[in-house]
Amino acid sequence: MDSSKVLIVGSTGYIGTWITKACLASSRHQTFLLTGPTTHASIHKLPLLLSYKQEGATLVEASLDDHESLVSLLSGIDYVISAIAENQIEQQLKLVRAIKQVGTIKRFLPSEYGVDPDFMEHSIAPGSVLFEQKRKVRRAIEESGIPHTYVIAHCFAGYFLSGLASFGRFWPPAAKVQIYGDGNHKVVWMVEEDIGKYVVKAMDDVRTLNRTIYVRPPSNIKSQMEVVNLWEALSGKTLQKEHITEQQWLQNIQDENLPWELRHAFSIFYHIFFEGVIMSFPINHDNEASSLYPEESVHNVNIWLNTLRLEATLKMIKTDFFAKNSLRCHQNS
Amino acid sequence: MDSSKVLIVGSTGYIGTWITKACLASSRHQTFLLTGPTTHASIHKLPLLLSYKQEGATLVEASLDDHESLVSLLSGIDYVISAIAENQIEQQLKLVRAIKQVGTIKRFLPSEYGVDPDFMEHSIAPGSVLFEQKRKVRRAIEESGIPHTYVIAHCFAGYFLSGLASFGRFWPPAAKVQIYGDGNHKVVWMVEEDIGKYVVKAMDDVRTLNRTIYVRPPSNIKSQMEVVNLWEALSGKTLQKEHITEQQWLQNIQDENLPWELRHAFSIFYHIFFEGVIMSFPINHDNEASSLYPEESVHNVNIWLNTLRLEATLKMIKTDFFAKNSLRCHQNS
Repeated sequence: MDSSKVLIVGSTGYIGTWITKACLASSRHQTFLLTGPTTHASIHKLPLLLSYKQEGATLVEASLDDHESLVSLLSGIDYVISAIAENQIEQQLKLVRAIKQVGTIKRFLPSEYGVDPDFMEHSIAPGSVLFEQKRKVRRAIEESGIPHTYVIAHCFAGYFLSGLASFGRFWPPAAKVQIYGDGNHKVVWMVEEDIGKYVVKAMDDVRTLNRTIYVRPPSNIKSQMEVVNLWEALSGKTLQKEHITEQQWLQNIQDENLPWELRHAFSIFYHIFFEGVIMSFPINHDNEASSLYPEESVHNVNIWLNTLRLEATLKMIKTDFFAKNSLRCHQNS
Repeated sequence: MDSSKVLIVGSTGYIGTWITKACLASSRHQTFLLTGPTTHASIHKLPLLLSYKQEGATLVEASLDDHESLVSLLSGIDYVISAIAENQIEQQLKLVRAIKQVGTIKRFLPSEYGVDPDFMEHSIAPGSVLFEQKRKVRRAIEESGIPHTYVIAHCFAGYFLSGLASFGRFWPPAAKVQIYGDGNHKVVWMVEEDIGKYVVKAMDDVRTLNRTIYVRPPSNIKSQMEVVNLWEALSGKTLQKEHITEQQWLQNIQDENLPWELRHAFSIFYHIFFEGVIMSFPINHDNEASSLYPEESVHNVNIWLNTLRLEATLKMIKTDFFAKNSLRCHQNS
């Protein structure tokens, strides 16, 4: 079997990193990574790009703004996965145009992965703009007749689970946790490594052609309150719960003194935690990633939260230190 | 032999990452990493902290602002390495105070690694502030009688070598390169992985006690022009050279319309590339890392630049693609 050539756009981004790692780990694919002026202007992307190269990736230079170079590059590629940043979604229209012209791309996966934009037509500003842009890209793909798959993986563990959904914090709080309303809406919490694997699996699967695939394993469907309780059991500490009302949260979203990026994120949190949009519609088993790929194991919420435990407390180090020293004293006496 | 307990401050920073990896790779040490509110507020530090934990690091929570918790933590620690960020240098005075009180730390390595601040008393603003702060920390360490080592590793490959010393670019330019003056001052270019290894080696070496150690392997002493010529040989392309005069560069540094951070970096580049400060003073062999640790191999400039080559050009992919397709046509006929 020939290995297929996969081009990843956005390989140094947050979720792009995990998709790239999964693609590099798969022996069935040759991984090509688009690099350009933006990648080369950030010192933080350099070690990552070099590590990809070391693991076998081929870096190719092209710009989304240079249609001819893009067409030329794509004519040698089988699959295209985009994990372009949220503020670059419409840039993908240039990619769609080039993919259409080339005509030989077997599958295009646009940058999605979060909440399904086709179920967010009712969403509130400013987050609504992101979903509008994602729908615009979807419609352009469909109108161009490009073979595609949309992968919806819901709440990334790093962004949502690490702080128990507390805002702006990426490690469980030690004393107090913010609870959205009663904290009982069900959410899907997914570890990024698993998302990367499912994206690469779905990419060349005949069953996923021109469909939306949801990553919604039963073990990872939990409410915020259930997540907080799991953490309390793991850490052995009870957290103070600060319940935020829907009214308070909506006021935050509308507060024009706050930065746009913050209000944008607040509005997406609104739909997830106050509206419960993620589990608000049923899906079929044959659209669900863990059913499609039962051979892949999934990190459940409990296992991942456990990796966040600070194993050693100050007390543990000191005890160890004193134990060692008293042992020495004993040997000396 | 007991393994020693090493506490690293700034483990998620640019050079701290490589020091942490080197410490984790050493079987003689147990690695403890200071984490706190700053670490937990950045989503980008989460995957890194989790990967450290997976490799055996112990994360401990403490704040430099909480003297008692710091003293309590340090009482179980043998060695302290700081790789705190450049804008946090004076925060280390709090660490010095706690280390002095504990009195059992065998060695403290403050955040240095770049240019030796004791040879920068003549340096120009705004970069001069960084060197002043580093000197202030050194003097506090010495006055407190804390066992210490200062490691000077000069120009990090990522920041300086990746763009052939072009400003704000971390991949070799394709067409044009900025040359500082005639580009002939000698510079020491060091790969971060090697710096990390030397720091961990120097940490518990009796020969480095209360001394400044320079990482200055002969193979890595090259001028900017020599580096550019090496890249031209590797890439097979001749770059256009744009020579910047000392006068032009000094004007940039003084241009108050430019952001402070940029002028700060410009002024450090001035001393390195126009003044040639790095090689302006002699050092002894027994103060030089590659002489002290001949068992460690060093990435030379050529080897590291070679990792930046974009192996596949568009042409290569296309040729491969057409070759494969023509083969298929042949098999079908």
